[in-house]
Amino acid sequence: SADAAIETIVHFVETAHPVDLAAWIAELPYEQAKSEILTLDLQRRVRTFGYLPASFQAELVAWLSRGELAEIVTRMSADDRADLFKLLTPEQQQRLLRDLAREEREDIRRLSSYAEGTAGAIMTSDYATLSADMSTREAIGLLRREAPEKETIYRSYILDSERRLIGSIRLHELILAAPHTPVSEVMDPSPISATLDMKQEEVAQMIEHYDLLALPVIDEGGRLVGIITHDDAADVMQRETTEDFQRIATVSPFSENMREASVAVLYKKRIFWLSLLVIGNLFSGAGLAYFEETILTYVALVFFLPLLIDSSGNAGSQSATLMVRALATGDVTLKDWRNLILRELLIATALGLTMAVVVSPVGLLRGGSDIALVVGLTMIMVVIIGSLVGMSLPFLLSHFKFDPATASAPLVTTISDAVGVLIYFSIATAILIP
Amino acid sequence: SADAAIETIVHFVETAHPVDLAAWIAELPYEQAKSEILTLDLQRRVRTFGYLPASFQAELVAWLSRGELAEIVTRMSADDRADLFKLLTPEQQQRLLRDLAREEREDIRRLSSYAEGTAGAIMTSDYATLSADMSTREAIGLLRREAPEKETIYRSYILDSERRLIGSIRLHELILAAPHTPVSEVMDPSPISATLDMKQEEVAQMIEHYDLLALPVIDEGGRLVGIITHDDAADVMQRETTEDFQRIATVSPFSENMREASVAVLYKKRIFWLSLLVIGNLFSGAGLAYFEETILTYVALVFFLPLLIDSSGNAGSQSATLMVRALATGDVTLKDWRNLILRELLIATALGLTMAVVVSPVGLLRGGSDIALVVGLTMIMVVIIGSLVGMSLPFLLSHFKFDPATASAPLVTTISDAVGVLIYFSIATAILIP
Repeated sequence: SADAAIETIVHFVETAHPVDLAAWIAELPYEQAKSEILTLDLQRRVRTFGYLPASFQAELVAWLSRGELAEIVTRMSADDRADLFKLLTPEQQQRLLRDLAREEREDIRRLSSYAEGTAGAIMTSDYATLSADMSTREAIGLLRREAPEKETIYRSYILDSERRLIGSIRLHELILAAPHTPVSEVMDPSPISATLDMKQEEVAQMIEHYDLLALPVIDEGGRLVGIITHDDAADVMQRETTEDFQRIATVSPFSENMREASVAVLYKKRIFWLSLLVIGNLFSGAGLAYFEETILTYVALVFFLPLLIDSSGNAGSQSATLMVRALATGDVTLKDWRNLILRELLIATALGLTMAVVVSPVGLLRGGSDIALVVGLTMIMVVIIGSLVGMSLPFLLSHFKFDPATASAPLVTTISDAVGVLIYFSIATAILIP
Repeated sequence: SADAAIETIVHFVETAHPVDLAAWIAELPYEQAKSEILTLDLQRRVRTFGYLPASFQAELVAWLSRGELAEIVTRMSADDRADLFKLLTPEQQQRLLRDLAREEREDIRRLSSYAEGTAGAIMTSDYATLSADMSTREAIGLLRREAPEKETIYRSYILDSERRLIGSIRLHELILAAPHTPVSEVMDPSPISATLDMKQEEVAQMIEHYDLLALPVIDEGGRLVGIITHDDAADVMQRETTEDFQRIATVSPFSENMREASVAVLYKKRIFWLSLLVIGNLFSGAGLAYFEETILTYVALVFFLPLLIDSSGNAGSQSATLMVRALATGDVTLKDWRNLILRELLIATALGLTMAVVVSPVGLLRGGSDIALVVGLTMIMVVIIGSLVGMSLPFLLSHFKFDPATASAPLVTTISDAVGVLIYFSIATAILIP
């Protein structure tokens, strides 16, 4: 019944985790979304709003009154607030700044000023600071007063009088220490930190590498300017990985959710590489035209063409994709190239031999022993060349500061195809034509 | 000089983060690694040992005395300890169990008993528990005594007399509350939890979805049996993603580090799919043989063969790889298939038309207007079919409980090649042969 349905929804709105509540609200029309948001108590309203997709937040701003908006924005975490601010129109930005207290106003201006892609752009100013000469008891008292305002108080940062970062300490270390111990005696005096201009991926990898909950960010003068939390780092890693997937699919990177991306966006992101590869493939065609005579004399050679060029491309795609991932995780670095190329040569030779053995009987059956020999030899050669191209291309791209993931399966396939056609018909012409 | 070099090393060993120290030690021969480990003070020794690669830990066990080993293992985090235990020989396991206290012995047996890939196999028993009727002051006192033993005390779990999970509370919430408040009044009475048999990926996704630091795991009776921490969840996600990369490269999944994997392992992991695809490609060859007459009459058709079958494969690889990623992140679910297939049809038609326009002039130049017509029409058809195959295959695999990442670029390419050859020469025969 309708009553039961309403009751179910009311129960959901009252008890669901803000993450799930936000996902539900994001599917509603803006006006209805607004009224659902406003029925929540303030703390829940702020958390739920923070989990809405950024574009939805920005749209919703138009539906909220100035007072309703300021109330939410003031209590949002500093980094979410700065992200929202960047999405607003200049008029909305001005209106919002007027309604905020001076401290939030300056904070929002500062955090939204860092270049996209840098540590500065994902850090937050919601961290707790202490000074070294406090006792642990005083420190806990200070945190007790400040805690509700801060995104993470699991770790506090110790600053000198110039705001330079001189140590860090975990909450439970403060609680465990004797009450009158100075903070300087129990703090970690050399905390790991990042600088403002570091790339987001680097920062995210540091957080993962050292299993950190948060990473402090310092400016050129060693002054603490923000922290980056583990969940924001995980989001960066996830975005980077999705971008790698897009690149190895020869799709230009895009940030839209795959389910919601429009026909126009996907067309634009896919057509560039597809057209470029068409031009690359015309070389294979030109190569074939050169061997017209051989083809007309031994038409059976054509039957093995898709097989041979695909096998080369497949072996190359394997190597390329494995390398792209290994470079992204740091399992392999640029200097490993020399050691890996010899191993690749051995593997590719073994693969090529095996595949030649698989395919030669078919060659024998279809075109006789000469054709079988040509097909077998070509298979060995193209698998080796495909693998070496596939393995080297990510390193080469990385060396010249391109994203190694650009060494996509289709790109490797197109390159090995052109080379494969030449090898195939050169071998054929040498062996078959007297 | 040699002295300066030694000093640098000593300084590094004394000050480096355990993560970096472990990475350095893992490159040393076992005997030297052992003596470096033993020069560290106990706390640092345990942390550094915990960061060594699991296989290196297992090898090192043979070099440590029973006392040295028991001292380290007793202080390791419960999940790392259970992981190490699983890698030891039966004799080493027995020897180690004899040297541990009863509590650790039972814990190690229990934690190492869960099936690989389940929540049980990655959880740890280092969590802090409280009861609901304690005051917050009593709770803090208890944590103060227990804290050094526990991996994470940022959140404590509240159990009833049957050890059933009835709430959770964060450390700073305890500190903020008035000292005589009962824990039951300030705890979160419905914490998110996982069950023992849930898959690791699901658990890792929950932790990421809700931005948790740790997720409690309960048994069928609702009793708390362990927690899974955010860093272990991040490791699971990373492994899963690497496996997806391997699958879309048609490489059978392997867990070795790419830099250290042997020729034999890589050969074995790569040859299965390569050989299978050879057989798939033989269909394209058989298709071509059927059109021998057309080929001999219009040899120019062969020049466009690599281009057309590659374009189909490339468009298909794009769709497949985008879908594999979207399914892995949860951006797209099985039920979205219907909505996405129509969009894909529109995009693919636009892509096919554009590519036909790019390639038709070349057709005109090489073979006249009839060939240009055949090549253009084929291009539109094969791009549409490649895209639809690429988009649907991951859904189909997922529906039948296979890993969608099996819809790799090479598999999609092979399928669209066989179909593409048939389409190409059918269109050619229909238009060109009177």
